[in-house]
Amino acid sequence: MLMNSFIEKIINLALEEDLGTGDITTNSVVPLNTIIKGRFIAKDSGVICGLSVVKKVFELVDKGVEITVYIKDGDRVNSGDVIAEIEGLARGVLSGERVALNFMQHLSGIASETARLVSLIGGSSMKIVDTRKTTPGLRVLEKYAVKTGGGYNHRMNLSDGILIKDNHIKAAGGIKPAIDAARQNAPQTLKIEVETETLSQVQEALDAGADIIMLDNMDNQTMREAVNMVNGKALTEASGNMDQRNLLDVAQTGVDLVSMGALTHSVKAMDISLKFY
Amino acid sequence: MLMNSFIEKIINLALEEDLGTGDITTNSVVPLNTIIKGRFIAKDSGVICGLSVVKKVFELVDKGVEITVYIKDGDRVNSGDVIAEIEGLARGVLSGERVALNFMQHLSGIASETARLVSLIGGSSMKIVDTRKTTPGLRVLEKYAVKTGGGYNHRMNLSDGILIKDNHIKAAGGIKPAIDAARQNAPQTLKIEVETETLSQVQEALDAGADIIMLDNMDNQTMREAVNMVNGKALTEASGNMDQRNLLDVAQTGVDLVSMGALTHSVKAMDISLKFY
Amino acid sequence: MLMNSFIEKIINLALEEDLGTGDITTNSVVPLNTIIKGRFIAKDSGVICGLSVVKKVFELVDKGVEITVYIKDGDRVNSGDVIAEIEGLARGVLSGERVALNFMQHLSGIASETARLVSLIGGSSMKIVDTRKTTPGLRVLEKYAVKTGGGYNHRMNLSDGILIKDNHIKAAGGIKPAIDAARQNAPQTLKIEVETETLSQVQEALDAGADIIMLDNMDNQTMREAVNMVNGKALTEASGNMDQRNLLDVAQTGVDLVSMGALTHSVKAMDISLKFY
Amino acid sequence: MLMNSFIEKIINLALEEDLGTGDITTNSVVPLNTIIKGRFIAKDSGVICGLSVVKKVFELVDKGVEITVYIKDGDRVNSGDVIAEIEGLARGVLSGERVALNFMQHLSGIASETARLVSLIGGSSMKIVDTRKTTPGLRVLEKYAVKTGGGYNHRMNLSDGILIKDNHIKAAGGIKPAIDAARQNAPQTLKIEVETETLSQVQEALDAGADIIMLDNMDNQTMREAVNMVNGKALTEASGNMDQRNLLDVAQTGVDLVSMGALTHSVKAMDISLKFY
Amino acid sequence: MLMNSFIEKIINLALEEDLGTGDITTNSVVPLNTIIKGRFIAKDSGVICGLSVVKKVFELVDKGVEITVYIKDGDRVNSGDVIAEIEGLARGVLSGERVALNFMQHLSGIASETARLVSLIGGSSMKIVDTRKTTPGLRVLEKYAVKTGGGYNHRMNLSDGILIKDNHIKAAGGIKPAIDAARQNAPQTLKIEVETETLSQVQEALDAGADIIMLDNMDNQTMREAVNMVNGKALTEASGNMDQRNLLDVAQTGVDLVSMGALTHSVKAMDISLKFY
Amino acid sequence: MLMNSFIEKIINLALEEDLGTGDITTNSVVPLNTIIKGRFIAKDSGVICGLSVVKKVFELVDKGVEITVYIKDGDRVNSGDVIAEIEGLARGVLSGERVALNFMQHLSGIASETARLVSLIGGSSMKIVDTRKTTPGLRVLEKYAVKTGGGYNHRMNLSDGILIKDNHIKAAGGIKPAIDAARQNAPQTLKIEVETETLSQVQEALDAGADIIMLDNMDNQTMREAVNMVNGKALTEASGNMDQRNLLDVAQTGVDLVSMGALTHSVKAMDISLKFY
Repeated sequence: MLMNSFIEKIINLALEEDLGTGDITTNSVVPLNTIIKGRFIAKDSGVICGLSVVKKVFELVDKGVEITVYIKDGDRVNSGDVIAEIEGLARGVLSGERVALNFMQHLSGIASETARLVSLIGGSSMKIVDTRKTTPGLRVLEKYAVKTGGGYNHRMNLSDGILIKDNHIKAAGGIKPAIDAARQNAPQTLKIEVETETLSQVQEALDAGADIIMLDNMDNQTMREAVNMVNGKALTEASGNMDQRNLLDVAQTGVDLVSMGALTHSVKAMDISLKFY
Repeated sequence: MLMNSFIEKIINLALEEDLGTGDITTNSVVPLNTIIKGRFIAKDSGVICGLSVVKKVFELVDKGVEITVYIKDGDRVNSGDVIAEIEGLARGVLSGERVALNFMQHLSGIASETARLVSLIGGSSMKIVDTRKTTPGLRVLEKYAVKTGGGYNHRMNLSDGILIKDNHIKAAGGIKPAIDAARQNAPQTLKIEVETETLSQVQEALDAGADIIMLDNMDNQTMREAVNMVNGKALTEASGNMDQRNLLDVAQTGVDLVSMGALTHSVKAMDISLKFY
Repeated sequence: MLMNSFIEKIINLALEEDLGTGDITTNSVVPLNTIIKGRFIAKDSGVICGLSVVKKVFELVDKGVEITVYIKDGDRVNSGDVIAEIEGLARGVLSGERVALNFMQHLSGIASETARLVSLIGGSSMKIVDTRKTTPGLRVLEKYAVKTGGGYNHRMNLSDGILIKDNHIKAAGGIKPAIDAARQNAPQTLKIEVETETLSQVQEALDAGADIIMLDNMDNQTMREAVNMVNGKALTEASGNMDQRNLLDVAQTGVDLVSMGALTHSVKAMDISLKFY
Repeated sequence: MLMNSFIEKIINLALEEDLGTGDITTNSVVPLNTIIKGRFIAKDSGVICGLSVVKKVFELVDKGVEITVYIKDGDRVNSGDVIAEIEGLARGVLSGERVALNFMQHLSGIASETARLVSLIGGSSMKIVDTRKTTPGLRVLEKYAVKTGGGYNHRMNLSDGILIKDNHIKAAGGIKPAIDAARQNAPQTLKIEVETETLSQVQEALDAGADIIMLDNMDNQTMREAVNMVNGKALTEASGNMDQRNLLDVAQTGVDLVSMGALTHSVKAMDISLKFY
Repeated sequence: MLMNSFIEKIINLALEEDLGTGDITTNSVVPLNTIIKGRFIAKDSGVICGLSVVKKVFELVDKGVEITVYIKDGDRVNSGDVIAEIEGLARGVLSGERVALNFMQHLSGIASETARLVSLIGGSSMKIVDTRKTTPGLRVLEKYAVKTGGGYNHRMNLSDGILIKDNHIKAAGGIKPAIDAARQNAPQTLKIEVETETLSQVQEALDAGADIIMLDNMDNQTMREAVNMVNGKALTEASGNMDQRNLLDVAQTGVDLVSMGALTHSVKAMDISLKFY
Repeated sequence: MLMNSFIEKIINLALEEDLGTGDITTNSVVPLNTIIKGRFIAKDSGVICGLSVVKKVFELVDKGVEITVYIKDGDRVNSGDVIAEIEGLARGVLSGERVALNFMQHLSGIASETARLVSLIGGSSMKIVDTRKTTPGLRVLEKYAVKTGGGYNHRMNLSDGILIKDNHIKAAGGIKPAIDAARQNAPQTLKIEVETETLSQVQEALDAGADIIMLDNMDNQTMREAVNMVNGKALTEASGNMDQRNLLDVAQTGVDLVSMGALTHSVKAMDISLKFY
């Protein structure tokens, strides 16, 4: 299974914090060789995400536990659908159960909410993107869940994207000097995005050659004007407490991207249970 | 600052995933010695939690960054209240900003929701407790946030509490043999809790000497009968998709504890921002 | 193999400290493909403990090394008995040999001594339990060895048991306020144990509802009175430089538990060797 | 404080295993700002070892805890002597107490036993050296304790010394080819030691130019002959279940070194307590 | 000191591998409290890089060692110039000496060679950039050294830049489908670079909207034509065993960037010594 | 595969720094199940080193990737020779490609240069040895590469060899007291090497019983006299900016060892590419 170090670290941390020094109940009560079987079942409808994490959890806990997966990440399920089956020694299965569910419920919650928002804007070409407002330790997985739900990723972290905000502008002495500094010093492989709050800032960013212009906390009418002003010479990104109520309206302003922190910072877990039989 | 290894690990992981190979924007645009000042400001009302994590984040990023805290964990704030001030090199402050906010918004979200639920049941002696349905990697911090909001903690993990569930009962051959095995094999320092779904199971657990009896997915009338049956000889815990709509009714059944997974698995981040000036 | 992170960490640390930058003798002297076979043989009588650690050591050093186990943890052996056979590349076998033996000799020493003490108190219902006076880094394994030898475990660490000592009592302003604070603030899943040194403290702890009462450094007569006073309303634990000379007398006082630090802090390794043929 | 990574790792592991998710008793019972003072007191006579480890433990747990040391490693104490004083927040002091004591009692046990054996052989020039039979994870510290007690160190691990044993000899086809291979392939900075069991092997090792000859499980008379045979052309090391009963006799055979596994594999902890006042 | 986790990890690893279980010579020969003073002196001319790493090394080894720096990273020195002074306990200074020098000599070697190449192309606007052909573990530091010497950074790793190579093109079914897939699936914050080997591929990449076009292993005449064809609609990057002999000619083709693996994969250490006095 | 912890750590670090949060190009452009095949081909002549590292890299990245090796470490290749073949999922192969090549090119560069220097001194019995002037994090691998190329290893680090330099001599009060202190305090298993700069120091070291005498920065005539003076009573090691131009002359002075920092601190990578077909 191909995973990066961030994912392995958070899975290991989750197992450490849940296992502590061992599953005292199972070890005291269940005979060593007891085998159990169970099914992961959706208790709600939504988009499943995190199956490879579930497999990895049990691989780390007990290589002997077998998981048979019936669907794949990104598939939509309804309440009652069987997602996967599991079989193995009770000690292995019960030791990994809660951690596996915590991951899958959280990631499926994000994928499901993303999918719901994507469907709200129907055939629009506006892309819904995530932010850096993620749950500590889960950045890579949460961004994967956003993609699984049909959304798109903004930069992953401070090192793989340039986003010039008001502090940077103030420190550099203006939008143009800030953009010039970024173009001179940062790798040429990164686009330059600038946060703007007024139309005159949009013009300034455009003149200085920004690749992406963030329209921060603008009303829809102002965004529409900004989009016209930019006229395809840069990408435009709507930002600032975006929520589902105005998403379709925002899409109709013509912006290319809308970024939504709530996708990852306010997650409702999808209800999934592991039933033994 | 006194922290355990779980907290240090998740803070380090959060910094690693957000910093990547470095803050390319600030490093390219902001002069090396630029100093900035800012204020953490509540944008919503709620209970603040996570200030020591915020301090630790900046201690790890840049020891020179100074934070002056105006309130303490557990204090209630309203929109516009200043939580803390920060001053330091722009590189340090901006490198830690997002991680610090992600922690404080998440934990304050949990504390605030817990406080809201606690206030719902007013003078009741029923304790609202958390579960193991926490966000991976954040177990210790999330349980701290529940306490900060006025709730109580159930067991932290599989090693510091005995909770005999249906699988254990099945594997042991009944409630009584399961409790006997736990009493014989597990440390005497741990109470024995048993999950029950019917009144006859409650009676069985009681007869076998359970210390805590979980009443799982019972309606309020059944719980009331269970509480009468137990009559103080064990603690009782209501469990199973508890939510705010029936919380006061549950409190009136007389159960000692109610456990709520949603406290930690479906968190709405509290809105807090860092404004520079 | 199902192990928790503490066990994996100490095995890795033991291998790191013994291998350093590599086995310079074997690498310089033994041809790359030399195969060797050997037998782990008891040189003394006792109770074997740590076979899964031995397997894990070689799994980490060289997956190709094969171990055939003839007995299982907890089995009693006599001098000359073959415990296991090993076969593999000389480099793998010789690199893991010393670490594997160091673990097995240490853990078998603990299991054997525990078994000896348990047999001393014959049919008594008093349980011999361990303490937190363990060798740094080996807590989980040493407590496993105590169980393997027929003893029982006290709390594993500071987070999975409540033990109110004289400092806590002094800080809280008395036994009753200390117990009340613990009952109010700590998880309900943990019993409350109180350390007492006099009969009046025993009475005070009892009145305040302690679940377990530690009788610290009391003479046998005082302990007998304490047990009578408690009369089954709490568990009693004898503590304080207990040793084999008075163990049977202590058992006859009627206490439920006796805790012995020497089980784990003063270990005589069991003599086991790996003989090649 | 100057420490190597092995020492830092075992201290961190010891703290992790003892703190778990936090000190539930102190956190529940003791007010946040309570200060306590205590004294580390010897309850037995012996040689103290591990004071810098004690300091490091509290530095990691709570930098605010202050330790005033009255003696230094290697000093001899008697029962009742004050070793050090400690003062700080109760949470910090109590969280580190057990771990600090476990280290100091274990290391002082080794230093004391080593000192006792060294004094047994009085003015002899024979050096008592340790082995690789150490407690897993504590290699560097235990070998430091042996030196603290007046003993000497053999090689630290497999990479910093050449010791050709019977397996190596067999694989290489004899003592001479084994020594030749080591001389050709291993760094010139390491001496070559060979394990011998007979006088003819001693002669063979000597002829092949061994720097150190281990006399394994020989009786004293044979060792005396071996020493004569070697006649200063190599160092001689007595080995094989050496114990205090024959130590003086061994010294009189004229061997240069005697290695004793029991120094580190069968340790009796020195009795030291932390008394609060 | 503000450092990211990659830098801390490689410094720690370098210290671990050089200290092993401790500096046996110094510990055996030099009295515990001996203080020494020394100077880091350039033995060659070049551009210094890595002073903050030197400081961090000694901070980790012994906080008491004091370093006074006379120049800063990027300064040019001549043979005999004093770079910094150091004073502290001999044990601390000697334990960190070699590791500190190994870092500074390696990084200064890269900075010096980069500066030499930059000066070769005089007033040209072509930027000399690095590659991913770096020494394992030193990526972030080596790229910092390239910047210190006046060069520029290409992408840091596989996650912060898009570079479509021939395998990607083949797998996607052509340059256009590959670029379309990248534009659709990758974050909008990253530019799209395509590797081309012929002018027709250049045209294809241009038509598909590539942001950067790599001209791989082309002769100078072909590159000149490619630059004309691109005509400012994308950045152009010369690549493929570039070396100093043809660098000025390459600059005159008009390409924007030239990437050179040898900057980091074939480093000649700058000669720097630490002289004690 | 038998590896020590230093090697595993540097491989993991190299993968972390190159993968970041994932291979964005391949993940965006290449279908999930695309299989690719390729050949590692020498682009230059030299001695290959690092094949087991290459295997380990892919084992960590994706266990499904298969590598078929056609030669073994130490074999000489010419430009165009196929070193190994690789086949697997494009995501696995491309994720590990650069890291694997970076290791193999670096280590083969060292092995090739060592082999070249060894051949320069033809039938001489002088051994070419490495130093501690290695690339941070790569010590164990680089020293392995030196052996692979036909050279020899000096001590690996500060803990597995005694080398008394001028600072030690000054601190101890002379060569004789320094050697005496080392002989008294350090393990007997290590030889004692002393750095000398004059013939009178050579004599002093010899008189005090040094096992190895380093002749530092002496001209060839002085070294010849030193070798005569030592006359086989100790090993002699030429040191100090040795390079290929005078290597044969140095060999003819009769010294036993010559140590060369440039073997590892100034490495020219061997040109090796991975060609897909």
